[in-house]
Amino acid sequence: MDLFTDEYFMNEAMKMAKIAFEENEIPVGAVIVCRNKVIARAYNQTEKLTDATAHAEMLAITSAANSLGSKYLNECKLYVTLEPCVMCAGASFWSQLGEIHYAASDPNRGFARLSETVIHPKTKVKAGLMAAEAKQLLDDFFKKLRN
Amino acid sequence: MDLFTDEYFMNEAMKMAKIAFEENEIPVGAVIVCRNKVIARAYNQTEKLTDATAHAEMLAITSAANSLGSKYLNECKLYVTLEPCVMCAGASFWSQLGEIHYAASDPNRGFARLSETVIHPKTKVKAGLMAAEAKQLLDDFFKKLRN
Repeated sequence: MDLFTDEYFMNEAMKMAKIAFEENEIPVGAVIVCRNKVIARAYNQTEKLTDATAHAEMLAITSAANSLGSKYLNECKLYVTLEPCVMCAGASFWSQLGEIHYAASDPNRGFARLSETVIHPKTKVKAGLMAAEAKQLLDDFFKKLRN
Repeated sequence: MDLFTDEYFMNEAMKMAKIAFEENEIPVGAVIVCRNKVIARAYNQTEKLTDATAHAEMLAITSAANSLGSKYLNECKLYVTLEPCVMCAGASFWSQLGEIHYAASDPNRGFARLSETVIHPKTKVKAGLMAAEAKQLLDDFFKKLRN
């Protein structure tokens, strides 16, 4: 896989999702990239942290802001394996993320079912990269949970 | 002021907002109450923490979950001096907050301008308590910022 492509970075997010899977968390992973460098990696930790707000994107945004020493992430790209919910989309608005790339869609809780004004007008959104793989991991997780 | 009334708890949230004001943060304060006990107090700290996600409500929800050892806050009430944004409303959804009481409305970034499905169907929302005082504090803050 070529370095520094969208596929490369989404695959890094998938690695995070797989760690979540192993730790019995809903498998969603995220990385934030600034000038071709991964500055934050996170996966959903709502169970481990006993915190409903500990979505992969929230943890990644806070970590990236710490890394840069800036609460604005307008030169950064978020790669996340599932369409952000409105909480995480709202966080991307406040941090003015430059780009959001998400893999699988989330018709139930994804932000896209609501008004597009949830996202900052300067944030570019791209969907669908590695969507099948990300969805498969989620399906496998919920299958494991039921058994 | 009588103890354990909505006014009492909203006043506790106002005290938090006033601390934010003194620390040059946008003055929004929040408390979370469980069985008439304040289990979390927080104010907006986006500047101090260099984190766009560090809204009063987010910090209060995480703190309340830590306090209870539960990511669900369905027996809790959030009192916040400004209408929550979609990020914070989304956080209230995931934590299944029992009640949200907010003071001032936020026509620009408040959740209410969007679909009501941002909020959990079991969460009761009440608005307007101490709204004038909360708005005055915000107006004073932005006036101070401009001078």
